[in-house]
Amino acid sequence: MLKKIKGGITAPKGFKASGVKAGLKKSGKLDLAIIYSTVLASIAAVFTNNTMAAAPVILSRQAVKNGTASAIIVNSGCANACTGPQGLIDAQAMVHMTAQLLELEDQEVIVASTGIIGVNLQMDKIAVGIKEAVAKLDERGSESATTAIMTTDTFSKSCAYEFELGGVPVRIAGIAKGSGMIHPNMATMLCFITTDAAIAPSILKQALTEAVNVSFNMISVDGDSSTNDMTSVLANGLAGNALIESSDCKDYTILAAALTEVCKYLAQQVVRDGEGATKFLEITVQGAENEADAKKAVMAIAKSPLVKTAFFGEDANWGRILCAVGYSEAAVDPEKISLAIGDVTIVKAGMGANYDEKALKDIMAQQDITVTVDLSLGAGTATMWTCDFSYEYVKINGEYHT
Amino acid sequence: MLKKIKGGITAPKGFKASGVKAGLKKSGKLDLAIIYSTVLASIAAVFTNNTMAAAPVILSRQAVKNGTASAIIVNSGCANACTGPQGLIDAQAMVHMTAQLLELEDQEVIVASTGIIGVNLQMDKIAVGIKEAVAKLDERGSESATTAIMTTDTFSKSCAYEFELGGVPVRIAGIAKGSGMIHPNMATMLCFITTDAAIAPSILKQALTEAVNVSFNMISVDGDSSTNDMTSVLANGLAGNALIESSDCKDYTILAAALTEVCKYLAQQVVRDGEGATKFLEITVQGAENEADAKKAVMAIAKSPLVKTAFFGEDANWGRILCAVGYSEAAVDPEKISLAIGDVTIVKAGMGANYDEKALKDIMAQQDITVTVDLSLGAGTATMWTCDFSYEYVKINGEYHT
Repeated sequence: MLKKIKGGITAPKGFKASGVKAGLKKSGKLDLAIIYSTVLASIAAVFTNNTMAAAPVILSRQAVKNGTASAIIVNSGCANACTGPQGLIDAQAMVHMTAQLLELEDQEVIVASTGIIGVNLQMDKIAVGIKEAVAKLDERGSESATTAIMTTDTFSKSCAYEFELGGVPVRIAGIAKGSGMIHPNMATMLCFITTDAAIAPSILKQALTEAVNVSFNMISVDGDSSTNDMTSVLANGLAGNALIESSDCKDYTILAAALTEVCKYLAQQVVRDGEGATKFLEITVQGAENEADAKKAVMAIAKSPLVKTAFFGEDANWGRILCAVGYSEAAVDPEKISLAIGDVTIVKAGMGANYDEKALKDIMAQQDITVTVDLSLGAGTATMWTCDFSYEYVKINGEYHT
Repeated sequence: MLKKIKGGITAPKGFKASGVKAGLKKSGKLDLAIIYSTVLASIAAVFTNNTMAAAPVILSRQAVKNGTASAIIVNSGCANACTGPQGLIDAQAMVHMTAQLLELEDQEVIVASTGIIGVNLQMDKIAVGIKEAVAKLDERGSESATTAIMTTDTFSKSCAYEFELGGVPVRIAGIAKGSGMIHPNMATMLCFITTDAAIAPSILKQALTEAVNVSFNMISVDGDSSTNDMTSVLANGLAGNALIESSDCKDYTILAAALTEVCKYLAQQVVRDGEGATKFLEITVQGAENEADAKKAVMAIAKSPLVKTAFFGEDANWGRILCAVGYSEAAVDPEKISLAIGDVTIVKAGMGANYDEKALKDIMAQQDITVTVDLSLGAGTATMWTCDFSYEYVKINGEYHT
């Protein structure tokens, strides 16, 4: 059983964090964070698939291969992407400065960036910021770190849970940022998870991959996957549970479920903060020939600007939903498809059904709406979370100038 | 040499058209059209790939297999899609009524519909409308037919050209509708082309497929492909040129080029009328490893809401363009990519270049903008036309109620 606790990513034993103002954001807000484990921890991470991956992604992808790390240095306000060789030099310098001040090896430090693409980091400001962030590392530092990784986010995203492994209390927590360029395969999304569970790196990687596949890889705000995304988990073992060395044991199952819960919660928070979002949509496609088809269909619906604007207009335009399924390349029998919004079935056997219009109108007026498409062909199921498309989305992205 | 002429789709010899008010549109505007060749013509057509294809698409896909037809009956205001067995019965009835009144066989009539999905046709109104449309068939009827197939279009789309085949003057013309749900593989797009050239059906199909691949399949307004799209061409041979029976002759090349010109012109008109569009973007990816990669990359750019909102904001946010290339799955070497907007190179070797900011600002303020990405890897090239994403798009699609 997971119990919600306070304290964010510094709730697990042996973790400190900080967030400072390095001056990278024109707004003068917090823009540089460090997450630190007082002992060397197992690390696992997944990164964007974008071939234009940013310099920090290139570096960190390499660094996590060691399986252990102690600190993560993150800046917002500048993505350090499309910055060529200088970008790599700058990202390496961030790692080195942080390692020196924390008396670590370079390979024990992970680096991440988010913000505008195509601009070089202001390294003088970064240098001053890192010094201050190291000095401010604190067991109550989660909130300032969470705030420091935000860009167009309108609220900070954080959670922490406690549970037991073999009778030993264990904590797991995470913070995330991201509200635009959100789409499967990690988008402009940063997520940092900490736990004091003891688990071997390769097993931790397996648990993280499973968790990400049903959470961060199943959300979409605008269909754009970014250059900078990463989700990482540090597990420092200070809870004192028996080391998890295999995925074939009860403790693994429990920890993996907790990790999935953290990822799902944070992924959904990211969608709720989708740029300009007024609705939170949980879309499920079931009855597909197989899981791959279910994913294709659910992604086509979740990405469709026509579906998303219809929900913004509180219009149950089911033709647009079926149309999206139709071009998704999933196997479909038009005479078997059915569709429900909330608990109101509005399409049966591919045709509009008689339904309670008042009930449907009430559902469409709510903020949280579920959409269920049943293809009635097999057992394939997939669920995705997305938001509507509003005037605000256009405003935020039309006015966010480079 | 193509010479622009007047008269729309009734400019080619032996074609008549009409558009009437059947009462399917709440607005009371023209909503039913007939295009008619006084002699049996070769026909070729391409249809949507959407598996939820509308009833008229299912019927017409079958009918064009004969290779000949004399009339096309089209309604707007109701897509007759997701309407089950009744939809097929209604579409068949439209064909039959039209055939009877024109003294044709059923298989000589093609049917098409566009409008709201999931609603059955009002067949009493259709019946009256068809009678009136047949009575009004006229050699100057192109304009009313063009207007009658419009839905959210803000202007009608039509063109006509004259050219020579072996010294014989030949005419080709087309009309189109569509401004939303526009994306490769035909979207909510109807296009009807007429020519008085003499050409065998199978050769006509080849020419149409080639033309559509570089025109209608290379435009995108919002990434949604619809249930009802079709592009057809009727060739009645009344110009008196020598029958084109092979694609391996000069006359074929000339006719195919003219057909491509008609398709490109109408496809671009559709994008210019994209829902809420304020910019017309011609995006080219060159230097890709192969043509497939060039297409992947150019489509990722043209579909990206972040790219499209940036152009709406007149912001040369090149990071978003490179990011889209990065997730397109095209082979990319980040250190070789370059990008120009208009004639201003703003990215070289994957990094921001020094450029004339005033010149770029002037280009971004224009209505027509070209974007060129060079991957510097090979000879693959693809061009796509798209528009920006504005408040109006959200307004039109959020308020277009079912």
